[in-house]
Amino acid sequence: MTEHSLWRFSRALHRAINERQFDQIEPLIDEEVEWTIHGPVDLFPCFGARRGREAVLQVIRQIAERVRVHRFDRESIMLGVEAASSMLRYSLTLLETNKPVRVRLAHFAQFREGRLSSIRILIDSLELAEQTVYPPHMRTVAASA
Amino acid sequence: MTEHSLWRFSRALHRAINERQFDQIEPLIDEEVEWTIHGPVDLFPCFGARRGREAVLQVIRQIAERVRVHRFDRESIMLGVEAASSMLRYSLTLLETNKPVRVRLAHFAQFREGRLSSIRILIDSLELAEQTVYPPHMRTVAASA
Repeated sequence: MTEHSLWRFSRALHRAINERQFDQIEPLIDEEVEWTIHGPVDLFPCFGARRGREAVLQVIRQIAERVRVHRFDRESIMLGVEAASSMLRYSLTLLETNKPVRVRLAHFAQFREGRLSSIRILIDSLELAEQTVYPPHMRTVAASA
Repeated sequence: MTEHSLWRFSRALHRAINERQFDQIEPLIDEEVEWTIHGPVDLFPCFGARRGREAVLQVIRQIAERVRVHRFDRESIMLGVEAASSMLRYSLTLLETNKPVRVRLAHFAQFREGRLSSIRILIDSLELAEQTVYPPHMRTVAASA
């Protein structure tokens, strides 16, 4: 039994982010890939929709410039023939401030001949915003509004 | 071929929320169900972990008191023998203010003998907070911080 495409892609993605080595990830991305990270693009420029291998490699490079993956736990997973979805809890380090950030995300991925052909990622964006771009008093402001 | 448990559960859940009819949903929930909506419990008391049919029915009642489901689009889906995951885009109405709210979520569900035995739900919580509890100037505050 061959390894599921998700495992190969996941390993290559984390290597790209943590070691800025893009040689393994590039051949695992379909030329016509559709990629979306749902969430506030104005707060997180890495978010949003991208189409095509070059655009996706560029986003992965942008992510690699901002964070390191410290660890991740896969809380839920479903594997299909050329599909995979999972929910993950990431512990990251923000490179700019060296600050730890924890964030949960879910992804739905499709593969074609072992290459990523589409992926949608949903992130707990408030959790992320509160640890990065929002000031600490934000929730107090909200509570008193 | 019998209908997948997800479809039956989804129909009964939306009927429970929109019509406050809980007779269909109750027998579709395992007595020992584990239920989690990830996100800020202090902002949204319906969020968090619940265990057991009664606790879950209570959360569904709380949700039914706050929102109506106007429509939903299933953007991604994976079905297994007794498992299902999907990403959904909901258009809701907040009953208190009659305000429309759009929110995206992902869920991972397990069924046992056709009954929901566990579910994890991840919501784009910033999108939800900005349309409900956060004041309109919130993002400006964040941007200038």
